[in-house]
Amino acid sequence: MSGHLAVVGLGPGDARYLTAEAVEVLGVAQALYGYRPYLDRMPVRPGQSRHASDNREERARAAAALVHAAQGARVAVVSGGDPGVFAMAAAICEEIESGPPSWRALDVTVVPGITAMLAVAARIGAPLGHDFCALSLSDNLKPWELIEGRLDAAAGAGFVLALYNPVSRARPWQFAAAIERLRRHLPPSTPVVFGRAVGRPDEQVSVVTLDAADATQADMATLVIVGSRETRVIERPGRSPLVYTSRAVAEVSA
Amino acid sequence: MSGHLAVVGLGPGDARYLTAEAVEVLGVAQALYGYRPYLDRMPVRPGQSRHASDNREERARAAAALVHAAQGARVAVVSGGDPGVFAMAAAICEEIESGPPSWRALDVTVVPGITAMLAVAARIGAPLGHDFCALSLSDNLKPWELIEGRLDAAAGAGFVLALYNPVSRARPWQFAAAIERLRRHLPPSTPVVFGRAVGRPDEQVSVVTLDAADATQADMATLVIVGSRETRVIERPGRSPLVYTSRAVAEVSA
Repeated sequence: MSGHLAVVGLGPGDARYLTAEAVEVLGVAQALYGYRPYLDRMPVRPGQSRHASDNREERARAAAALVHAAQGARVAVVSGGDPGVFAMAAAICEEIESGPPSWRALDVTVVPGITAMLAVAARIGAPLGHDFCALSLSDNLKPWELIEGRLDAAAGAGFVLALYNPVSRARPWQFAAAIERLRRHLPPSTPVVFGRAVGRPDEQVSVVTLDAADATQADMATLVIVGSRETRVIERPGRSPLVYTSRAVAEVSA
Repeated sequence: MSGHLAVVGLGPGDARYLTAEAVEVLGVAQALYGYRPYLDRMPVRPGQSRHASDNREERARAAAALVHAAQGARVAVVSGGDPGVFAMAAAICEEIESGPPSWRALDVTVVPGITAMLAVAARIGAPLGHDFCALSLSDNLKPWELIEGRLDAAAGAGFVLALYNPVSRARPWQFAAAIERLRRHLPPSTPVVFGRAVGRPDEQVSVVTLDAADATQADMATLVIVGSRETRVIERPGRSPLVYTSRAVAEVSA
């Protein structure tokens, strides 16, 4: 009698990042919920309904999907990247916690996916090869001072940083402020990787040094990786450089 | 004339975590290199050679694969989880940096995979739903004092922590010391998730509170997630609890 709700990670970009589990779960879903551009990536299947919504409507989308699943349907909520990293799985959990008891009876499955930082890192080498933090620069749901404190703590302790949501129309200055903040802790030569639209036709991946990093290089579709003192760039004749973070730490840099 | 080297993430456990790209790259490889249990997961293909090695021989495995690729072959090095997270991609880059110039001419591809923390998080809800750090507790290549400093910095600033390599035969006390360290920063009620062998038949995922966390709950195959002040547990009648980290931060906890 109780329905099924799956929160499915599509990975970034095209179908090459889909896992076998994601393909299977999407294939048997009776209803798909998600941000419209994600749904547009999916093949149309007879008998499968689609419920597209705007990017900012995460809670409403989660609630609608839960209502539908509680009616006994097999529902899938699609998410770019991994649903558990700055994405739909936490929104679903929030709704379950504050919703009716019937939502706690639902069979809920989270299907992991390739999150943006893994895809960008793979494109350039292995910049996340050692200890790292994933940090959202969005101050929609947390104060900017907290983000500054986390930037200080992470860079000061020698973590590589993967910065999600660096820029949006509503948050134009935060990324420049974050870069400025990180310059207090890291050498000017620290590698910074900008990965935009990885896995899509307009993909762009570039490496600069921290002193040359510029907020205009990032937009809403960009994931930024800021290296640590152990992050190195290998130049290659006729090929793009490799960026990686050494697993060995020679001296305490914190 | 120059060969191809792919570093391929298998995800944790069984084939359901393989991406379409990984399946494709593994299908066309002429030689597979990797830790024996990972190779044993792969179907045998005619004309494809296999070169198994021990878990501790990462640099030797990387060098052997590079030598083979530089001879013009299409070589794949397989890695559990994601090759860029505490795995083979950084070892390959290290070898390229210190190796002969011909290795810099190679076509190198990293194929991302589902890393353990994403798989464990998906099994239990969305504990990585907000800012988090991934930290290896292995002090083989970095001093223990640096690890302590990173635990302090991450927990103090309110990051959720994903702890890789909590325990090994050669490192019996480090995980207990890490838990003790984290108790200085986090409330006793902080949720701690132990995910063992996720995606394999002997999978075990459990949730305890930080005050009840015990080093005997982790082994070499365990990934541990330590929550933040924003991490919550949703009890569900007749089902395992959901653990998630709220995207909203009410007050500065750092």
